Amino acid sequence: MQNFTFHNPTRILFGQGCIANIAPEIPAGARVLITYGGGSVVNTGTLAEVRQALAGLTLFEFGGIEPNPTYETLMRAVTLARDERIDFLLAVGGGSVIDGTKFIAAAVPFVGEPWDILARHAPVTAALPLGSVLTLPATASEMNAGAVITRHATQDKLFFVSPLVFPRFSALDPTKSYTLPPRQVANGIVDAFVHIAEQYLTYPVDAKVQDRFAEGLLLTLIEDGPRALAEPENYAVRANLMWTATLALNGLIGAGVPQDWSTHMLGHEITALHGLDHAQTLAIVLPAMLQVRRLAKRDKLLQYAERVWGLTDGDAEARIDAAIAHTRAFFESLQVPTRLSSYGIGPEAIAPLVAHLERHGMTALGERQDVGLACARQVYEQAL
Amino acid sequence: MQNFTFHNPTRILFGQGCIANIAPEIPAGARVLITYGGGSVVNTGTLAEVRQALAGLTLFEFGGIEPNPTYETLMRAVTLARDERIDFLLAVGGGSVIDGTKFIAAAVPFVGEPWDILARHAPVTAALPLGSVLTLPATASEMNAGAVITRHATQDKLFFVSPLVFPRFSALDPTKSYTLPPRQVANGIVDAFVHIAEQYLTYPVDAKVQDRFAEGLLLTLIEDGPRALAEPENYAVRANLMWTATLALNGLIGAGVPQDWSTHMLGHEITALHGLDHAQTLAIVLPAMLQVRRLAKRDKLLQYAERVWGLTDGDAEARIDAAIAHTRAFFESLQVPTRLSSYGIGPEAIAPLVAHLERHGMTALGERQDVGLACARQVYEQAL
Repeated sequence: MQNFTFHNPTRILFGQGCIANIAPEIPAGARVLITYGGGSVVNTGTLAEVRQALAGLTLFEFGGIEPNPTYETLMRAVTLARDERIDFLLAVGGGSVIDGTKFIAAAVPFVGEPWDILARHAPVTAALPLGSVLTLPATASEMNAGAVITRHATQDKLFFVSPLVFPRFSALDPTKSYTLPPRQVANGIVDAFVHIAEQYLTYPVDAKVQDRFAEGLLLTLIEDGPRALAEPENYAVRANLMWTATLALNGLIGAGVPQDWSTHMLGHEITALHGLDHAQTLAIVLPAMLQVRRLAKRDKLLQYAERVWGLTDGDAEARIDAAIAHTRAFFESLQVPTRLSSYGIGPEAIAPLVAHLERHGMTALGERQDVGLACARQVYEQAL
Repeated sequence: MQNFTFHNPTRILFGQGCIANIAPEIPAGARVLITYGGGSVVNTGTLAEVRQALAGLTLFEFGGIEPNPTYETLMRAVTLARDERIDFLLAVGGGSVIDGTKFIAAAVPFVGEPWDILARHAPVTAALPLGSVLTLPATASEMNAGAVITRHATQDKLFFVSPLVFPRFSALDPTKSYTLPPRQVANGIVDAFVHIAEQYLTYPVDAKVQDRFAEGLLLTLIEDGPRALAEPENYAVRANLMWTATLALNGLIGAGVPQDWSTHMLGHEITALHGLDHAQTLAIVLPAMLQVRRLAKRDKLLQYAERVWGLTDGDAEARIDAAIAHTRAFFESLQVPTRLSSYGIGPEAIAPLVAHLERHGMTALGERQDVGLACARQVYEQAL
């Protein structure tokens, strides 16, 4: 096991009806800016439920935070928050809304150009406190300190991490995910799956607990993911998925082990240049990445094959082939295609994708920092 | 899954050498009281290592906190802390030292008789901040908000819980456990095992993540527990054990599931009246408890048999028998006897043990609050 620091101060309120209990988590007298995305939290009544839970506080609202939240939109919220002297942010939605709200939290007190937080890793020394009401299990943004933000004008998709943007609390009510479109449910399952893979499918460091926790989360996604699509109002299934997605990226399974994240970085460029959903890009890149880097990941791929997919027959290469095939088939079974060509993207797209990686300094990715541009090109080609 | 709240703000510094990094976790200028137990942290050099890491701070020391820390001893530390205007406590040792330090933290600002915190559940409204340097993986006190304290004069062993006594940080260096006596290593493994069992072997609520995490921790103890005794300086083994023991009782695997804790309550009375090690009492009570309550715990016992012990042959009753037998054999393999008689305790001891349970109000224990005094008597008899 590698040395590590683990710290996660977010308070989780979990279960049906938990939104009613959020008021004590917000300082009395706070001027609260509620942030959200499109109309779904309006239509489902979740926004009204939040307003009711916070009756008595001074509430402001900012809607329209898009999937892959943009700097341009978020800076309008920053202006509003500054003008209205907001002192607490409450994100209501999925990972994009929470990520965007983390950026708002850091940008409001930031002196200078807030884009530097992303582009130049300018230190975040202060942030507004924030909480979240989660409607879409997927990113774990509700229980971590990271955010991914896109600059529309330049097609840059960049991330920042600061302990100051851990949500103070997050309310996770699985029933809020009942009405999600199947595509978003499937995307959430793929997203969580790949978060786990990025922390698990590297090389062994004899970290038994982290490995078994990762495998337990993957098995839960494999068992309950398809059930969530088939039985949208099965509470137990939705609860398992929601808690799994949170634990997939709250720092726990990644503490003390190597981490990869190259699949995410290659995927981000596909979203930036072609507008695919984040999870679609992960479903495309992961199987290709595992295939191209099967030698470097050999030991963990064999463990994955046996413990997650129950594959014990055949020689090692055959078991690795089968594990990658099962992974691809699982994503496809959720109606998330796993080939660039399925989205109408051909070989001519690869050079611009690689050029974007280079421009963003993504030239030494992976758990051993040995995924350079040539390897990335190979992965994109494998994913055609 | 049941509704739950999960919040654990303790920062974990994990790995060889991490004690050198604790100074930034303590407020500058703090007057720090270092608390410890017997001479082992002196002899092993750990105390010197802590002093060196904190050079520049104003340090005080209080040694002599015993296993099953007593109110009488701890109140002397409370007096010292008040007299010296201490504003940070640093526990250096195992669960007893950390538990005792939590009580000191709560007692120093307490108005009135601090024993009421334990005996009358008097609310803890303030506490000194504390940190810990762990030397003995076992209780998870380093990452939770609970403590068990004994009053020597009355043989009462009682607990309290307050979010104000979460350690601000805990430093977990697995090499600090190399020199532990085998009995303490074995006790730690049994203690962690039974912590997991109390949260896992109840009844199913379709909490897949919690179940798989619990099983992963149990499997790690089963694999690496005996290795820790056989190869005391195997770093990977010690690291896995240390992290497992912490995660066994930091609130994570118990969130959203029923919890039992009757084995602990029956065990506490054995320690109070006969002076056995805490873990010895758990090794005695758990197999007997599972046997007596096998019907109520049937579904989870069958899951445990299959997923933890790989038992799939025979009918259900035979698999449950085998799972209980494997549990007992595992404790015995660590040289922790599992019968009252092995410790020279006979049938005449049972009536006083049950009377003590009654005196402490322990008359409706277990995940369904249906373990009354008659059931407790049956368990003690089964454990003879």
